[in-house]
Amino acid sequence: MSEFSANDCEHMAHALRLAERGRYTAHPNPMVGCVLVCNGEVVGEGWHKAAGEAHAEINALHAAGDKASGATAYVTLEPCSHHGKTPPCAEALIEAGVAEVVIGLEDPNSEVDGDGLTALTGAGIQIRIGLMQGEIEKLLSGFISRVTRSRPFVRLKVASSLDGCIAMSSGESQWITGAEARSDVQRLRARSGAIMTGIGTVLADDPSFTVRDASLDVGERQPMRVVLDNDLRMPLSAEMLVLPGKTIVYCISDKKQQALRDTGVEVVMVGQNDGQVDPAEVLGDLARREVNDVLVEAGPTLAGNLMSNGFVDELVIYQSPHIMGSETMGMFDTPSWTELADRKTLDIIDVRRVGSDTRITARIGT
Amino acid sequence: MSEFSANDCEHMAHALRLAERGRYTAHPNPMVGCVLVCNGEVVGEGWHKAAGEAHAEINALHAAGDKASGATAYVTLEPCSHHGKTPPCAEALIEAGVAEVVIGLEDPNSEVDGDGLTALTGAGIQIRIGLMQGEIEKLLSGFISRVTRSRPFVRLKVASSLDGCIAMSSGESQWITGAEARSDVQRLRARSGAIMTGIGTVLADDPSFTVRDASLDVGERQPMRVVLDNDLRMPLSAEMLVLPGKTIVYCISDKKQQALRDTGVEVVMVGQNDGQVDPAEVLGDLARREVNDVLVEAGPTLAGNLMSNGFVDELVIYQSPHIMGSETMGMFDTPSWTELADRKTLDIIDVRRVGSDTRITARIGT
Repeated sequence: MSEFSANDCEHMAHALRLAERGRYTAHPNPMVGCVLVCNGEVVGEGWHKAAGEAHAEINALHAAGDKASGATAYVTLEPCSHHGKTPPCAEALIEAGVAEVVIGLEDPNSEVDGDGLTALTGAGIQIRIGLMQGEIEKLLSGFISRVTRSRPFVRLKVASSLDGCIAMSSGESQWITGAEARSDVQRLRARSGAIMTGIGTVLADDPSFTVRDASLDVGERQPMRVVLDNDLRMPLSAEMLVLPGKTIVYCISDKKQQALRDTGVEVVMVGQNDGQVDPAEVLGDLARREVNDVLVEAGPTLAGNLMSNGFVDELVIYQSPHIMGSETMGMFDTPSWTELADRKTLDIIDVRRVGSDTRITARIGT
Repeated sequence: MSEFSANDCEHMAHALRLAERGRYTAHPNPMVGCVLVCNGEVVGEGWHKAAGEAHAEINALHAAGDKASGATAYVTLEPCSHHGKTPPCAEALIEAGVAEVVIGLEDPNSEVDGDGLTALTGAGIQIRIGLMQGEIEKLLSGFISRVTRSRPFVRLKVASSLDGCIAMSSGESQWITGAEARSDVQRLRARSGAIMTGIGTVLADDPSFTVRDASLDVGERQPMRVVLDNDLRMPLSAEMLVLPGKTIVYCISDKKQQALRDTGVEVVMVGQNDGQVDPAEVLGDLARREVNDVLVEAGPTLAGNLMSNGFVDELVIYQSPHIMGSETMGMFDTPSWTELADRKTLDIIDVRRVGSDTRITARIGT
């Protein structure tokens, strides 16, 4: 374990804030930030904005110019050593004469796998690793999930009353939560590679699932819409089919595919699990399509299926200050949970007020 | 509106903290605190411990002795002027030569109704009123409710999962929340004049509803147990019937009363509302019995009935970090709430962590 000073922490925190600027655009690449420091002075900073554009280290080196020589580079993620869309960063750091590299997180990507480190140490550059690793892992949870588990990080969003209701039994649900919470959901969408839902929600609400908040710089990109639709009940008139961005419909039956495909939608047939589209296959396919983060905005059927089968990594509940009572729908359909011991324990990692609602973010335990 | 200095606020806050010491014992009297200040120095403090014992002002005057002459008295509630179990406090303040009285809240009790003020001003004592009135009203919500609305303040406690479940459909519910939350409920019980439940909960759980935490000084007093039991299904073997403290069973049918009464229970027949014991009659009767605060610990039937009919003043939810799913019971049975507009809006006044659970305290809006 390397040792770090207070100054080291300050510079890595700076690099982490730079990395976060790519939150809505770096996808499918990881967000990375880099700060170059020489004699205690920041001489260059950089972050990775989008795939195909320069990496964080290159931007920082460019900003530092001659001052990079002899500097310490603080970089949130291990510099790459492979020739991808851009030349390798390890090589660039060596050429610029950087004296030391402080790395937050080793690259979890097997394609990199320590080669960057080997190149740097081979060139006589001092390396220290692991500063603010926990924070960086949290920021990159989607990317890490995709490259290590071959499936995206799944974040499930629910809007409910304080007594856990998401709609009246009739389906009436607009609006459970307030405008600020709905605006906050725009940020969840913007940081996601795909929004997943079930056909029931499409038929009931005809949602668009687009990022409409112009203050969120998502560029041209809209998150993919993903619909789990066993028997292709997707209406050809669905709103999401005509909006910017891609829609994929996963089914287990091959009827009616052509009509849907004619609308420009991609229809993918996958295996089934208990008569339903198998979420494991869908998530595997999305990882192959380089989706890091999936936001699930679904009704209790799909939400319960994902929760029961252990596919939910993080739960984001927007809880409104209301009691809705018994003639309502709950968050999760979990027919197989008949004993208290079947319940899932949550690790609550953040609670905050969003308008008049409370946002609770939790990881799923056992 | 009187004007108050920072020193005034400090002394009234001191008096309020003294008043709170009577939280578990002053019942059915209001909690009152009093501080006597002379030349900036606290010369006496007092609080009201229990009915029949000295009032806060008398205790403070006793502590101050001769130093009360010329002092300012800070008292949370208007001094009484009536001869009850103890002589009137207004008279005692006059006799001690107090120069000024700063009052938090005018007495809402029609039996007092400004007579204390008249006596004090008649004796040439300067009076200022309204300092920290809101805080004092909150502390005395039970007493105020009883004397102004002729019914107790009703606090409904629920232990639920984050998705709003209070038990599995089978009834299994031990324990939804953790030990710290259950210990916190002991404090809610200790400050209540009565614990109310429905016969369903008695039959399912055979609860005792006693204050068992020895660190809570409730003296000999246990809160009354109140059971709403339409047809007197109360088992003669119920645990609460043999425990210290009084049990009252409210019914609408007069069968089987004698057997129950033979156990020492008081059986009261009241009118019905929709075929159920009318909660309005029960609450009126409890107010006549000088109950200030009722804690409801009930299942969804009674909880929903009270909530639907507007009888819940405050909701205390202990929310555990779990997802329990769909094969469960919700907090409130509200068969008449079929549209989103039927929901109740909450005014959340306190949220805090209790062990691994979250305690949410809310007042009920419209």
